[in-house]
Amino acid sequence: MYDYQVLFDFTQSVFEKMGLPAGEAQQAADILMRAELRNISTHGLVRLPEYVSLWQNKRITVTPKFTVVHETPSTALVDGGKGLGLVTAPKAMDIAIQKAMTVGTGWVAVRNSYHFGIAGYYAMKSLEHNMIGIAMTNANPLVAPTFSKYGMLGTNPIAVAIPAGEEPPFVADFATSPVSRGKVDVFESEGKETPGGLLQDARGNLTTNSSILRNGGALRTLGGDVAHGGHKGFCLTSVVDILSAVLPGANFGPTVVPTLGYVKDKTGAEDRGIGHFFGAMRIDAFQTADEFKAGMDEWIRAFRQAEPVEGQKRVIIPGDPERESEAIKLREGISLSKKSLDGLKRVAEIFKIAF
Amino acid sequence: MYDYQVLFDFTQSVFEKMGLPAGEAQQAADILMRAELRNISTHGLVRLPEYVSLWQNKRITVTPKFTVVHETPSTALVDGGKGLGLVTAPKAMDIAIQKAMTVGTGWVAVRNSYHFGIAGYYAMKSLEHNMIGIAMTNANPLVAPTFSKYGMLGTNPIAVAIPAGEEPPFVADFATSPVSRGKVDVFESEGKETPGGLLQDARGNLTTNSSILRNGGALRTLGGDVAHGGHKGFCLTSVVDILSAVLPGANFGPTVVPTLGYVKDKTGAEDRGIGHFFGAMRIDAFQTADEFKAGMDEWIRAFRQAEPVEGQKRVIIPGDPERESEAIKLREGISLSKKSLDGLKRVAEIFKIAF
Repeated sequence: MYDYQVLFDFTQSVFEKMGLPAGEAQQAADILMRAELRNISTHGLVRLPEYVSLWQNKRITVTPKFTVVHETPSTALVDGGKGLGLVTAPKAMDIAIQKAMTVGTGWVAVRNSYHFGIAGYYAMKSLEHNMIGIAMTNANPLVAPTFSKYGMLGTNPIAVAIPAGEEPPFVADFATSPVSRGKVDVFESEGKETPGGLLQDARGNLTTNSSILRNGGALRTLGGDVAHGGHKGFCLTSVVDILSAVLPGANFGPTVVPTLGYVKDKTGAEDRGIGHFFGAMRIDAFQTADEFKAGMDEWIRAFRQAEPVEGQKRVIIPGDPERESEAIKLREGISLSKKSLDGLKRVAEIFKIAF
Repeated sequence: MYDYQVLFDFTQSVFEKMGLPAGEAQQAADILMRAELRNISTHGLVRLPEYVSLWQNKRITVTPKFTVVHETPSTALVDGGKGLGLVTAPKAMDIAIQKAMTVGTGWVAVRNSYHFGIAGYYAMKSLEHNMIGIAMTNANPLVAPTFSKYGMLGTNPIAVAIPAGEEPPFVADFATSPVSRGKVDVFESEGKETPGGLLQDARGNLTTNSSILRNGGALRTLGGDVAHGGHKGFCLTSVVDILSAVLPGANFGPTVVPTLGYVKDKTGAEDRGIGHFFGAMRIDAFQTADEFKAGMDEWIRAFRQAEPVEGQKRVIIPGDPERESEAIKLREGISLSKKSLDGLKRVAEIFKIAF
């Protein structure tokens, strides 16, 4: 078990050694540590070596020029100047929130950015402002569209955070693929097979081989085959790709220049980074915040108190497990996988800092 | 085969007999007929008897008071005054488009409404304005949240229409459940079983019995079990329910007063109708329309030209099959199921008009 603050300080100092200004290094560390606390460790410290490697390969800059290219009262297009998503995304979300304060809603599309950690972090920034927050991003092409032989879309997560009154907020934060790439990595590192229906091999046939993503394989879409709605999963992941990448002019789907060594760069497209899309909606731009929050309390209680199927305790409200995990891990410490630990040790060596 | 115009005129005259003003009767007929043309016949003329029955039971009024309850430059809350969704929804979407013209985006939440036909109809209204259109709605509680014994959420569709340049637009229009209720109705009327993994019985156990929705059963969420991402489907359907119903103050999830005879009204909640949520985003509020449309052409071609798995012709771009169906059915006529035909004959008798 590792103490939260110890890991936080280490992570911040790594970002500082990379050359990020102190405030931004702290922000970036906060995002990765929030993933650890929320038990989304696939988006936590295990990613730190990936960020370092992007920096070593000069794919990202640590002092990027953040530019608002175009805006209207409710929208903005941001160029992240090839900075880390962890630096660019919080600023973009803040613009969405500012615009929502003025005209009711704010929507910001970002290009020339990179992996931004957990989408939920940004969506949740809206909560203290009595706003609904939305965040999404595209990513390395690993998901095969319905009927496609190859991965062409990212696991493209969506997060939606919605304030409640007496109840804690509703926070949905999920890859639009049935499992995230990180989950498959975990199965692989534990020597386990991936459940059937989730992966296909390089010919497009179903497989349970957890190493298949390194060997030309791909994830299937949410839903699986057409009889089970897999084409709807394709629609959903596509919409995230288009709003996050085509709308701001980032690299979309198969043209994303991979940040994973084992994903082949098939199209040789110019690198305009990946893209994100953020939204903030003031709830009192619709009904009063008090009425809405009372309604959300009713919603949350109706579902939490629903009769469960045999063998299950209850219906789980999106956000509940992550919030409970935060409280426990802050108190009791954070456990790290072997892969995370090995990565942190490598990073510590690179920067000659203690771990 | 039935001629498009003959069916259109019949449908319009039914709405006129119900007492809708001529323009609104024509609009309502256009929405149902568009569903028939687009081969989404589950949302076409088969629904006409349901609308007539809502009217006979005084659940809806044919001359509702449409009220903008509250607004900001980019948002509006609309009370549909217990009118048909087919009447209220087009007006609400037009408000979203108007607001987008002024401040970049427009977002409208609607309460006190009823079934609005195909969500895609509204999303597609944005296309001629060079806008991205979004439409969603909640519905009768038929989908069981992950681990719930009973159906508590609607099949809650989302539609997203995105303009392209030389290519036809991208139009995704899908129930967020793995299949729509209408599809299960079709399996039932054809005496077929529903594929495994989609339905559960009144105890929450999986079943393939296509009559189970009439007998306390429910649809599973998109993804199915937790190993295959079913909890993500629950998140998605929940977000549609919250934006469409809690945000405007309509009946949410299990409190929706059913419009289907076989769905039990469990909560006895006051009837504030179902709700919808509409969005319009001007693409030139981000980048220029020309740049964006060129990007969409690239996106569409990249996916359409993707290498398919063995046994499949190609990756299908959302909206392609429906657009192709429109052209064919306008030319060659529309075939109707026995259920649709029986319903239309019943309706013709009620209003003493020829069919």
